[in-house]
Amino acid sequence: MPAEKSGAAKPIRVALLGCGTVGTEVVRLLTDQAGELTQRIGAPVELAGIAVRRLNKERDVPKELLTTDAAGLVTSDDVDVVVEVIGGIEPTRTWLLDALRSGKSVVTANKALLAEHAADLFEAADASGADLYFEAAVAGAIPLLRPLRESLAGDRITRVMGIVNGTTNFILSAMDATGAGYGETLEEASRLGYAEADPTADVDGFDAASKAAILASLAFHTRVTAADVHREGIAQVSAADIAAAKGLGRTVKLLAICERVVSDGTESVAVRVHPAMIPRSHPLASVNGAFNAVFVEADAAGEMMFYGRGAGGAPTASAVLGDLVAVARNKVVSGRGPRESAYAALPVQPMGNTPTRYHISLDVADKPGVLSQVAAVFAEHDVSIAAVRQEGRTEDASLVIVTHAASDAALRSTVDKIGGLPVVREVVSVMRVEGAE
Amino acid sequence: MPAEKSGAAKPIRVALLGCGTVGTEVVRLLTDQAGELTQRIGAPVELAGIAVRRLNKERDVPKELLTTDAAGLVTSDDVDVVVEVIGGIEPTRTWLLDALRSGKSVVTANKALLAEHAADLFEAADASGADLYFEAAVAGAIPLLRPLRESLAGDRITRVMGIVNGTTNFILSAMDATGAGYGETLEEASRLGYAEADPTADVDGFDAASKAAILASLAFHTRVTAADVHREGIAQVSAADIAAAKGLGRTVKLLAICERVVSDGTESVAVRVHPAMIPRSHPLASVNGAFNAVFVEADAAGEMMFYGRGAGGAPTASAVLGDLVAVARNKVVSGRGPRESAYAALPVQPMGNTPTRYHISLDVADKPGVLSQVAAVFAEHDVSIAAVRQEGRTEDASLVIVTHAASDAALRSTVDKIGGLPVVREVVSVMRVEGAE
Repeated sequence: MPAEKSGAAKPIRVALLGCGTVGTEVVRLLTDQAGELTQRIGAPVELAGIAVRRLNKERDVPKELLTTDAAGLVTSDDVDVVVEVIGGIEPTRTWLLDALRSGKSVVTANKALLAEHAADLFEAADASGADLYFEAAVAGAIPLLRPLRESLAGDRITRVMGIVNGTTNFILSAMDATGAGYGETLEEASRLGYAEADPTADVDGFDAASKAAILASLAFHTRVTAADVHREGIAQVSAADIAAAKGLGRTVKLLAICERVVSDGTESVAVRVHPAMIPRSHPLASVNGAFNAVFVEADAAGEMMFYGRGAGGAPTASAVLGDLVAVARNKVVSGRGPRESAYAALPVQPMGNTPTRYHISLDVADKPGVLSQVAAVFAEHDVSIAAVRQEGRTEDASLVIVTHAASDAALRSTVDKIGGLPVVREVVSVMRVEGAE
Repeated sequence: MPAEKSGAAKPIRVALLGCGTVGTEVVRLLTDQAGELTQRIGAPVELAGIAVRRLNKERDVPKELLTTDAAGLVTSDDVDVVVEVIGGIEPTRTWLLDALRSGKSVVTANKALLAEHAADLFEAADASGADLYFEAAVAGAIPLLRPLRESLAGDRITRVMGIVNGTTNFILSAMDATGAGYGETLEEASRLGYAEADPTADVDGFDAASKAAILASLAFHTRVTAADVHREGIAQVSAADIAAAKGLGRTVKLLAICERVVSDGTESVAVRVHPAMIPRSHPLASVNGAFNAVFVEADAAGEMMFYGRGAGGAPTASAVLGDLVAVARNKVVSGRGPRESAYAALPVQPMGNTPTRYHISLDVADKPGVLSQVAAVFAEHDVSIAAVRQEGRTEDASLVIVTHAASDAALRSTVDKIGGLPVVREVVSVMRVEGAE
């Protein structure tokens, strides 16, 4: 006999904020799976209302549920759970704080809001005993935040590294496949619907930086906001960079990297988003197009990878519904999900101090002594060289250098100085390198 | 200010059953991370006792905690949570039932027990309001069961397919790399410690079948036991099978496959463990050695993959600790984790009815008309051929056939009949095929 009972349990009433692609999918799944969800939760889930900006837009949801009064809806006595899929900071933040303060549990997909105001939201949730869940905010449908918050809660996470933005991954995959430059590939991505009309949030790394902040906060039990994340987008990635990567058996990906750094016995956290070369044999190298994948390393568990669809209406709605089932179950059994865990309060390392590795590709004069001049600059900055490849041509020669790990600041200074050497005709490509060979 | 408080909360008292590789790691992690765990749980965790068979064995745990009285320990008033890492069915089952009935939450890594007696355990948990968690039972450190039970609780899972046994994966990876036969590769695996002295549970697929039963139960909200799982091991996989797979750009893996099958509008579940050829481009193909990886497909979420270490003391202990934190948190906030969800109660399909695809490699007489005779047998059994490759040689010829999906029973009959054709000199290799090309 199944353990979950349906019976006469009081329905869980849900307010939905936003009715775009994700919101419409949430309504569809709630409706199509009503019977199943009742069994899984132990009580039926009902939509109490859907807050939208304009009532008269064509939508595939019950019209009678629509309202423009989001502020009234989120604090209504008729609502137990608020699901937010609007995005943006204000007025969303105010609505969610009001909802949490009045004891409604909140499920949100809003990465930008969480990356800036998670602490306020958690505090409001804590004050009233409400739940705050946000699986859909990072890596879409991939169960990633729950594993970090719960499955690995007995382990010490040391590193989270992944591809968390589908638009930039689509563009870099296409550049790798075609050899085309950034500009024309972005145009193609827009034409195919893989890039927004204004692609800034994606291509400049803002979206990935928000997600990195959320991942780092959960992984390291430390408050990390978007402002703490070193951020570089993909607009500077050239066809020459992609070609240089190929020549070394590597490919270029926009990575979000969250690391626990131990230096002189002191722990800190380094969080960064930037393009990097990874070996083609690395599992992240074969993550193409709109897919996301995230590597997690922990002391006892070792290395893990999570892979799946990082965006889109249905995948995001799946993550939202999973959270909705969790908070609804908690309501039914008067339980509570995990609260904020920020006790470790580790300092966030500035990028300059973060250990990284560089790939540098140079066009140099084809004469003896060039390597020794270049190598001297590395030595001067205390940067150790891991590999060098030198190829002569008729007029000039190419020199490719991959470094060992050094502070990012030392590596940058090295590159600056090398660019000024008379024997160096052009710095063809400079890019960070990640992943073991 | 961090939300989790330590303060004067009542300690959570843990009884550990078993002190082998995993148990010792659990004790080590509990001790090393005591401060962190207190913060994460909101109360300290303390070991109340460790039940072992023999007290005088050399172990790296506090001697004063050891006891041979497991039955007394699990029902002691001094215990809140029981962690079981002994394995086996009895007396473990009795101890865990007693623990659950007396209100202790249970964390177990015991796949064999869960695959046979999950229903009894859940019933006992339900009667007293205790939690039953078992992340470590499947795929070691990989967070997989929590995603299935919770993250995807708002979605409709259609398929779970993965590599869930490290020993067989190590052997098949090695056979693929060296071209060696099963027997000598198993010996090598034993020598290197990748196979047990008695490897039956692994190589005959019992371990994978238990895990498949657990995965199917969670994915399809249906009680599936080990007896419901069609099981074939790897002892019959020959060097010729591996070579045939290579010739087709495929590799052989032991897969656990749980599917939702819809036929004539009726839903059922098919659960099976057997070796299968998958394309080398499939993400599971590059999962080598002791690693595990599991694909999950759901209607809204699409395709996901989970990858990591499937066994070993530390990875298993990580999963156990994650569950321990969860049940301890639930104790602190008087909450409850997810209960059994078996409401769907779908029928389990016999293997003969399950749609599969076959690869068949034959040595045949090198004369005209062979293909037409062989193809006639397929047609007679209503099995459609997807691809044929024919190669002539001096004396005889080889014929390689890959079918479209048909019922496994029809495919088996086809193979039997073909083996008896006078033009067929030898059936070199027969193996199921999985994964899109």
